Amino acid sequence: MVSSTDGFTWTPSAGRRKGLPTIGAVQPPNYSTQPPSEVHDVIVIGAGYAGLVAARDLATQGKTTLLLEARDRLGGRTWNANINGFNYEMGGTWVHWHMPHIYREISYYGLHNDFIVTQNPGSKEDYFTATTGSRQRNMSHEEEANIAGRVLQKFCNVDGEDLKQSWKYAFATVQSPKLMAKWDKLSCKDRLDEIQDQLSPEDRSILESQLLQMGGSSLEKIGLLGVLLWWSLGSHTPTGLNDIALHTRLRSGQSELHRRIFEHAESTGNLSYSFQTPVQRIEDADNIVAVTSRDGQVWKAKSVICTIPLNVLSSIEFAPPLPADKLEAIQHKSVNRCNKVHVDLNGPDYLSWTSLGTPGKGLVSAFGDHLTNASNSHLVCFGPDPDTPLGISLDDTEAIKSAVIHLLPKDKQEEVIINRIVSHDWNNDEFANGTWCFLEPEATTKYLSVLQRPYGNIFFASADWSDGWRGWIDGAVQSGTQAAKAVVFQKTSSTPTVSVEKKLANGA
Amino acid sequence: MVSSTDGFTWTPSAGRRKGLPTIGAVQPPNYSTQPPSEVHDVIVIGAGYAGLVAARDLATQGKTTLLLEARDRLGGRTWNANINGFNYEMGGTWVHWHMPHIYREISYYGLHNDFIVTQNPGSKEDYFTATTGSRQRNMSHEEEANIAGRVLQKFCNVDGEDLKQSWKYAFATVQSPKLMAKWDKLSCKDRLDEIQDQLSPEDRSILESQLLQMGGSSLEKIGLLGVLLWWSLGSHTPTGLNDIALHTRLRSGQSELHRRIFEHAESTGNLSYSFQTPVQRIEDADNIVAVTSRDGQVWKAKSVICTIPLNVLSSIEFAPPLPADKLEAIQHKSVNRCNKVHVDLNGPDYLSWTSLGTPGKGLVSAFGDHLTNASNSHLVCFGPDPDTPLGISLDDTEAIKSAVIHLLPKDKQEEVIINRIVSHDWNNDEFANGTWCFLEPEATTKYLSVLQRPYGNIFFASADWSDGWRGWIDGAVQSGTQAAKAVVFQKTSSTPTVSVEKKLANGA
Repeated sequence: MVSSTDGFTWTPSAGRRKGLPTIGAVQPPNYSTQPPSEVHDVIVIGAGYAGLVAARDLATQGKTTLLLEARDRLGGRTWNANINGFNYEMGGTWVHWHMPHIYREISYYGLHNDFIVTQNPGSKEDYFTATTGSRQRNMSHEEEANIAGRVLQKFCNVDGEDLKQSWKYAFATVQSPKLMAKWDKLSCKDRLDEIQDQLSPEDRSILESQLLQMGGSSLEKIGLLGVLLWWSLGSHTPTGLNDIALHTRLRSGQSELHRRIFEHAESTGNLSYSFQTPVQRIEDADNIVAVTSRDGQVWKAKSVICTIPLNVLSSIEFAPPLPADKLEAIQHKSVNRCNKVHVDLNGPDYLSWTSLGTPGKGLVSAFGDHLTNASNSHLVCFGPDPDTPLGISLDDTEAIKSAVIHLLPKDKQEEVIINRIVSHDWNNDEFANGTWCFLEPEATTKYLSVLQRPYGNIFFASADWSDGWRGWIDGAVQSGTQAAKAVVFQKTSSTPTVSVEKKLANGA
Repeated sequence: MVSSTDGFTWTPSAGRRKGLPTIGAVQPPNYSTQPPSEVHDVIVIGAGYAGLVAARDLATQGKTTLLLEARDRLGGRTWNANINGFNYEMGGTWVHWHMPHIYREISYYGLHNDFIVTQNPGSKEDYFTATTGSRQRNMSHEEEANIAGRVLQKFCNVDGEDLKQSWKYAFATVQSPKLMAKWDKLSCKDRLDEIQDQLSPEDRSILESQLLQMGGSSLEKIGLLGVLLWWSLGSHTPTGLNDIALHTRLRSGQSELHRRIFEHAESTGNLSYSFQTPVQRIEDADNIVAVTSRDGQVWKAKSVICTIPLNVLSSIEFAPPLPADKLEAIQHKSVNRCNKVHVDLNGPDYLSWTSLGTPGKGLVSAFGDHLTNASNSHLVCFGPDPDTPLGISLDDTEAIKSAVIHLLPKDKQEEVIINRIVSHDWNNDEFANGTWCFLEPEATTKYLSVLQRPYGNIFFASADWSDGWRGWIDGAVQSGTQAAKAVVFQKTSSTPTVSVEKKLANGA
């Protein structure tokens, strides 16, 4: 299997090594169906989910499409490494049939039988560990669900009706605008302060752990509105978000689905691509958009779909410059700079174990997610921004070990053996500069529609500013699909059915 | 607005009149982008959801596509009539973002803000009426949800775990095959007999009403497996099915979405169509499929996607004849022959009223679903097969009135004024011969994969044999999408990427 230069793994014997094997790596990195000097119908920048589905939609609809990707692999902030036959999901992981845009892709590419369950019950050690500072309590998963659900519900119930009326439709974009604007003024810290009298220290720790896992920053920076959106997407029930969004993943791994989408696009004969090609400049003049890479190559197209993440956009030169409101929106960035770390513990005991804990030693959650082929326990762990007091640097292996051990049951901490660590340091990755999008207070109200708006012949697609499952795989697919549609309808206005297209475009 | 000849309405002043206005009516009925004698890439038979999305997928991917439809309108077993500004959904109605295939279409065509809620709480008369034979009890919606959910859960809990493990994935097709085969031997009557000691008379009536509303036949004929599938799709929770599948509908109506899909396909310039054109014969010879209409016109294509409903397929001549197992499968048909009737009651009092009742006088449920523009209460009512003792003929207006009045609160029955009745007699409609698919015991095990299998260059798509939301709009979209994909991958095998297509095709 080919390796990507992305990610790293540590083992006791070999230490820390960069780069991981993945079927998402694309070799050779370049392929062209036409002379590169020709004007393509569309250039799609970025081969994450948004870019992949956009390129697929365009290529299958007969558009000559050039896909430019900075990395050496498919998937952007979602990809799986395969080590000794086990799939480690390095970024976006969980999918579900209640996420309609990604599920349609899973269904389309025949992966409907390919699900496995994270937090799989039934192992020898089947319980939850809550770590509240130096105190710790083990409990059943049933009690875990009751407490974690109850405190999340209390936190999200800002209208006394669990948002069941005011935020009834998780995907609607026109809904209780005054309430949304009011709630968007608050941070998670503000909301915690409102309900703190109703929380025991353990309650508060379990709630804070969940919030830090969601937003990956300090509680002052994490906007309340993003949490309320996730509550609504979780069907307004205490465990709905967990059941939908942290529950099932693809057995074959995200990179398998990327491959299928990519190869489908390739099979049309309309797709050219260039990987390992970071973009530096996008110039839109006289209805031709010229895209220049860092190494000075220039490609041209009638339209561009730019899927560069929010936290990277400021590194791109736009000519003419982006309008002032877009520049301001881009400056605010996503606050989510969480760490995601895979830790394999010797032996199968942690298959169904889960944990939350705060203030911890750099990680706020760890939970079992299947056994490796050698029957060791694979844990997925999350910790907030390394630049906050609660975070740790992924360069510091001893800090990672210490942080995960702190979350383990106290009577197991001395005996545990860490076999492997696997991670991708998204915060120090210049093509990500963070993880899934979480916006600061007021940013949604001020900037979401600004970020979504096209600029001339440049369309912007990303989970970072999607409606619905913003920050998730589903949002990336939704956003990429919408951008491809916008390009198609914009560029066929010479056909006799303009009115239909306008009607459709207006509906979008 | 143009009218379809489908459906009828009755009012006290005008009596019963056939045909209803709808934006789904297509005038003029014929349009061709190429000489009809030419061989099209694909002929799609049927302009319901399965056929519409298939035709759209093919036309947008550059395939010359001919859409043949027996009726004068789009939508097949889903369409809305518009009378005095109110949308009456004549067939398939409810959609939800937890139905991924249809929701992707809703999202794509910009209808994500277009939802309204059936069973809308908050009106003056906000309660539920349970009618058990001649006895009746009014209760709150909370109590309704508790009882209706509890009895459905009891009925569906055939494995002691609410199917949470054995039928974990609602869309998976390879799952607990031995258990599935075992459960598929049972009818709803069999299962009711197993749990009858645990049900009060009112419990049993509420449960039977739900089952009859699902399967639209006698309980002996309704296969248990279909109910268990719906339970799994309803997230294994007591009210999940109701919350997802009887809850939200499009404000603009199903026909609006049909229009958008149809006009999108049209806008490509690759779509020809002929409405009011029932098909009589499909002949597949020498890799050309000839389709002959009742009036003797013949069209040719390299492939055909046939979306003719299960209960109509036996009226079509296939040459060469369909294989024996397909013929046997078709003979078994769907048992669902329910009546769906809209009844407008004078005044707004029933906006949030709901009811279930059995044995009734022909209808087993009625519930408020918005007010008409004149502020009268619009009720949606269901009753089982008119040819069973529990059903009534839709030709019999007095029987309809008597059946709905029987479900109303006793103290209101004398005073109520029926302003309008609207319905489509699907069971006496030769292009439907029934409503949404519900299979008899053992039919799923024996025939589902047989019905799904292509035959030569003829592909079969319908909600009637879809995976997932079988019988629902979501299943129609899924099935139509899959058929279009199969045609595209079958027909591009001369391109250099055969292996990719084979891989994709095998994955599907």
